[in-house]
Amino acid sequence: MNAVRIIGIDPSLVACGWGVVDIEGTKLRHIDHGVIRPDRKAALPMRLNTLFDDLSKIITTYQPHEAGVEEAFMKDNAGSALKLGHARAACLLAASVAGLGIGEYAPRLVKKSVVGTGTADKAQVAHMMNVLMPGCGVTTGDASDALAIAICHGHRVNAAGVLYRRAV
Amino acid sequence: MNAVRIIGIDPSLVACGWGVVDIEGTKLRHIDHGVIRPDRKAALPMRLNTLFDDLSKIITTYQPHEAGVEEAFMKDNAGSALKLGHARAACLLAASVAGLGIGEYAPRLVKKSVVGTGTADKAQVAHMMNVLMPGCGVTTGDASDALAIAICHGHRVNAAGVLYRRAV
Repeated sequence: MNAVRIIGIDPSLVACGWGVVDIEGTKLRHIDHGVIRPDRKAALPMRLNTLFDDLSKIITTYQPHEAGVEEAFMKDNAGSALKLGHARAACLLAASVAGLGIGEYAPRLVKKSVVGTGTADKAQVAHMMNVLMPGCGVTTGDASDALAIAICHGHRVNAAGVLYRRAV
Repeated sequence: MNAVRIIGIDPSLVACGWGVVDIEGTKLRHIDHGVIRPDRKAALPMRLNTLFDDLSKIITTYQPHEAGVEEAFMKDNAGSALKLGHARAACLLAASVAGLGIGEYAPRLVKKSVVGTGTADKAQVAHMMNVLMPGCGVTTGDASDALAIAICHGHRVNAAGVLYRRAV
């Protein structure tokens, strides 16, 4: 077994997607995915604590070797960027404190990795996740992006040029 | 002894100031202060880890009951706001994971609390720290702001209206 287990994380204070994937050569295996939704009425430190704590537990449960985290999409609005910065730090810290190797990837690169074009929409990403990992059952939304981020990170940690085939 | 021990934190990825103060009634006692400077050449997750780790150790050493953290000064630049968001989250998480009560304060309010005007400059803040806590030896810069944040938080946790006298 030389499978590399990767957790992909799509940071958000509202709905933070995560997905765990095993990659062995050109084989992909879906392990699990989900969305963390901190209480929107809670104070910021508590919401960050929920993100950090839930991700830490998921990392303890699935023991990934590596983490891929989506890079910030640079918004014009400083207020939104500040919030996103908070969420990203909680995600990066959960991975970093657990000692995982971490890669950060721009949304365009993630889409290009799994759909072939950087302008793909969320539905295309979700569709490709179900093609690459039949039965994973992910639907459009944050968790499908997180699985795509994990696969994108797999491109980097997997030394060989990778051409994915259906999971077996 | 009914002293409340407060850590003040001035978040930054470059130079994060911290200061610990005991407040008992109208008495202030300086405990310690310093500046955390994560390696500027290190990757972001590692810099966040340094902030989180160093602050966690400081909290373990001094066992404060409460934390005051400076609120974001809303910059126009989304890139700067994103970086500041990362730094703030690492600070808030260190305090939150340790179970501390947390207050967040705008820079103007912090200055008003210790100098009497929200437009005071850093030199005035540092001067007042040395007036309120003679011998604390803090100089102009991030650590004096952190001490001021701790005192500002003291205003809130201290039920009585506070009129500080020199530490004894």
